Amino acid sequence: METLQINEVAPRDGFQSEDRFIPTERKIAFIDALTRTGIARIEATSFVSPKAIPNLRDAAEVVTGIRRIKGVEVTVLVPNVKGAERALACGVDEINLVMSASDSHGRANLRMTPDESLRQFADIVNAAEGSNVFINGSLSTSFGCPFDGHVPEDRVISLIEQQLALGVEGITLCDTTGVANPAQVSALCARALTQFPGIPFTLHFHNTRGMGLVNVFAAWQAGITRFDTSLGGLGGCPFAPGATGNVCTEDLVHMFEQMKVATGVDLDALLQIAATLPDLVGHDIPGQVVKAGSAERRYAIPSHL
Amino acid sequence: METLQINEVAPRDGFQSEDRFIPTERKIAFIDALTRTGIARIEATSFVSPKAIPNLRDAAEVVTGIRRIKGVEVTVLVPNVKGAERALACGVDEINLVMSASDSHGRANLRMTPDESLRQFADIVNAAEGSNVFINGSLSTSFGCPFDGHVPEDRVISLIEQQLALGVEGITLCDTTGVANPAQVSALCARALTQFPGIPFTLHFHNTRGMGLVNVFAAWQAGITRFDTSLGGLGGCPFAPGATGNVCTEDLVHMFEQMKVATGVDLDALLQIAATLPDLVGHDIPGQVVKAGSAERRYAIPSHL
Repeated sequence: METLQINEVAPRDGFQSEDRFIPTERKIAFIDALTRTGIARIEATSFVSPKAIPNLRDAAEVVTGIRRIKGVEVTVLVPNVKGAERALACGVDEINLVMSASDSHGRANLRMTPDESLRQFADIVNAAEGSNVFINGSLSTSFGCPFDGHVPEDRVISLIEQQLALGVEGITLCDTTGVANPAQVSALCARALTQFPGIPFTLHFHNTRGMGLVNVFAAWQAGITRFDTSLGGLGGCPFAPGATGNVCTEDLVHMFEQMKVATGVDLDALLQIAATLPDLVGHDIPGQVVKAGSAERRYAIPSHL
Repeated sequence: METLQINEVAPRDGFQSEDRFIPTERKIAFIDALTRTGIARIEATSFVSPKAIPNLRDAAEVVTGIRRIKGVEVTVLVPNVKGAERALACGVDEINLVMSASDSHGRANLRMTPDESLRQFADIVNAAEGSNVFINGSLSTSFGCPFDGHVPEDRVISLIEQQLALGVEGITLCDTTGVANPAQVSALCARALTQFPGIPFTLHFHNTRGMGLVNVFAAWQAGITRFDTSLGGLGGCPFAPGATGNVCTEDLVHMFEQMKVATGVDLDALLQIAATLPDLVGHDIPGQVVKAGSAERRYAIPSHL
């Protein structure tokens, strides 16, 4: 069985939705700590307009300020050609393009329909030509849209196909608002892996309705080994106040390690960093293992015995 | 595919660990509301010593006060012969005997080794003879013990066998402190179902380390259709402060309904009752769907479009 690849997205999907700006030097220290835990990849920031997401206005400073370690790739989200050019100038390993699988979410989040997004993808791929940077394409609302509801599997498959035809090299299927269920995940992952052999697929789940880890498990059973996760489970959902965020990195690593599936990640190191998050972000975090400890944890037998 | 059977344990596993006593009439109203949602069974209370668990000191009043509905069985936990006699006098449908699979947890929780528990099971089965009440046996720490650590699968299988030999009719395998992982769950469930065909097995998971629903899913894939769950995810773990409790009833029902697996339960009715829990218990609850809404929920497209 292939070792899992963890793509840590807390610095992007987590920090972008926090109420307060995380100071640049603290972001850099956080990412530097994470790169020493054995994760495969870190989504360090988003080269989005500072007006759209003020929390990530320091994207270039973060990417150029972090320590680069062989074996840990740095990826960044880019919403458009301008963002891609800024990212490429900073020497990232990967750019992560994003579009929605559904019309209304695309318009609401990116002000583009899927067709308009694809045309822009083509422009970004052109801009990246010759850079040797890996081009990943993320497909938001692949499992359902908060406005349009059901997103047909055929539509998702077609959008994957069109992205790949443009030169996108890897695909992330995103359950943006936490609506996916494990039966749906099994079906879409199996179909994608069969239809596009050799393409690296990453799955991105939110735990909005408690199904984050079960969807990861279903995807893994279908053959997926790459997951977007967020330390502490950071990352909110604007449509579900009070709901938890992305799948929690340390909880996922803990689960697979307990199953004897290699993650390549040092769980104790992750837990130490996760324990610093409430201070960093100013609130409690949804992650469970950092509170309960590993399943291996032993307690002293009560003294009355 | 068989319809799931939900055994609602909030009135027992939930209320017993709350800081405050839930007034008897509110317990009765809560259970009466739950019996109208389509759940198969409700664990209404525990006939334990009022000194051991003061929160459940009103066990007899609760069981005799609730409305009984055809098709909804009332089960109660009984820790000893005296508890069984009290329960039988109240006209329950099922008694749920409890023992630990591990020595230290048995001594800490019940002041009995597994062998001593089995002798007591025999006495309880005798006391219930002729009563027509279903006798279920719960096996705590079936997936690991907070004191002894690993609990061998062979030991669990042997304890199941010994319970059945005494006249126990159904078995609940309990992950008492939330240490089970889905690989372990798959293996034990598959073995138990193969080795003891026709015996109704129920799985009881805690979400202490975020693996509650994924363990349910793994058990269901192995052929298990009966689950203990707790509305709102009530039910703590004395060894893991801050950790969440039992698998959440409405989150489990939501997941299976999304997968098109029939639960027989009215999710909207469950969510309405779950929404009253914070007032009933005086604190926020871990359940996710009651905060986020169903995956079917639609939002209005933002007005700037």
